[in-house]
Amino acid sequence: METPEAGKQDETDEQTAGAAAEAYPSIGDWAQCSADPQYRAAVVDLLGALAYGELSAFERLAEDAKLAPSLEDKAALAGMAAAEFGHYRVLSERLAGIGENPAEAMQPFAEALESFHRMTAPADWEEGLVKAYVGDSIAADFYREVAVRLDDDTRELVLGVMADTGHAEFAVGKVREAIAADPRIGGRLALWGRRLMGEALSQAQRVVAERDALSNLLIGGTEVRGFDLVEVGKMFNRITEAHTRRMAALGLAS
Amino acid sequence: METPEAGKQDETDEQTAGAAAEAYPSIGDWAQCSADPQYRAAVVDLLGALAYGELSAFERLAEDAKLAPSLEDKAALAGMAAAEFGHYRVLSERLAGIGENPAEAMQPFAEALESFHRMTAPADWEEGLVKAYVGDSIAADFYREVAVRLDDDTRELVLGVMADTGHAEFAVGKVREAIAADPRIGGRLALWGRRLMGEALSQAQRVVAERDALSNLLIGGTEVRGFDLVEVGKMFNRITEAHTRRMAALGLAS
Repeated sequence: METPEAGKQDETDEQTAGAAAEAYPSIGDWAQCSADPQYRAAVVDLLGALAYGELSAFERLAEDAKLAPSLEDKAALAGMAAAEFGHYRVLSERLAGIGENPAEAMQPFAEALESFHRMTAPADWEEGLVKAYVGDSIAADFYREVAVRLDDDTRELVLGVMADTGHAEFAVGKVREAIAADPRIGGRLALWGRRLMGEALSQAQRVVAERDALSNLLIGGTEVRGFDLVEVGKMFNRITEAHTRRMAALGLAS
Repeated sequence: METPEAGKQDETDEQTAGAAAEAYPSIGDWAQCSADPQYRAAVVDLLGALAYGELSAFERLAEDAKLAPSLEDKAALAGMAAAEFGHYRVLSERLAGIGENPAEAMQPFAEALESFHRMTAPADWEEGLVKAYVGDSIAADFYREVAVRLDDDTRELVLGVMADTGHAEFAVGKVREAIAADPRIGGRLALWGRRLMGEALSQAQRVVAERDALSNLLIGGTEVRGFDLVEVGKMFNRITEAHTRRMAALGLAS
């Protein structure tokens, strides 16, 4: 999972994360914070959702690799899939390390993520690229926003697995090439991007509605500072704005 | 790609490789050996075939992960796929490092490997496991046999990417469990194992017939000691025997 398009977006993201980290100084480490069972449950939910997302991203990218028009592209997609699996492993090991069964922690999020992928199965190589870029970017934005509000250990872990692996640039370059070669593709992909955002929001709402610990963390019911409903609204605005910038970077109206 | 089942098979394989390495002392390093254009072409073929095999194994394992009956199994298969990709990357980097385009080196072998996978698409989770174990083991046996006859650098590279990653044990354990739960599965999987071996040999013959440099290396036309037709016959016997042992380890008649 990654966000940046070219260098510029990269900087913006880093600034955002940097600013957020400053605005939310340390609340302590995992040992201190996890003494609160509600906090602990919320973080287990978060790591479970994130782990399932990585495993599911692995599967999707491996599937997209089959659509690749060349061996180079196939290898590039397979490499992204392998990187997602590496992230999955880090999260799964952390869950096991704090005494949780990774599969059990992931299970509650399987249905929402599978629904998202079922509703947004790419029809071709370009749709797959846009989905890899836009979908993962939205997810990464969300997790970064949440991560900076968490205990030091969880924050470091989540920001680590969300770090850019250079894959987004690949997708952006390929999509721009495809639009340059056939400008009519642009209209279809712009619609596709809007659909991705819509489905992502609808599945996110479903998850938040179903998982009390997680939603308490998001709206500040738990002892995590600054995440009331106004903050959540602002967060979704920032994520939507970032999505708009990314679509523009792809040469698409959002 | 890996071979061993439990400890015993492991030792046998190591002894075989060890004995072969002793029987074939160093012929020099890559810099010396690659001065011969025929030798160089044969090794580029070998690495290209091997790299495509790893990329193709990645795709197949990722596909099998979808059939996994549990999240744990899914993650295990995805992990094997990611490991195969790691091997692909090592081979691809070596090809690039000696001035070859990895995609071009792989292309001549794409059709034979895709045919093999098309002819042996697993119908279910157990067939996928047997294929991962038996198919990869045959390939690993072949490459190990060839590797010990090559220059030091290529030998080390090939033996490295063929090293056991513990995945074979996973497949063996799961297949044994499945047969214990429903012994009728055994007959079907035994037939399946024979079909895998038949298709592998038929595709291997096709590749050897089409690639002069590679077959010259195998039958001793190139300056690589000890690989005449008698030796090739013996090699195929050893590979078939190892296959028989592996099928027995799975509780299957071969």
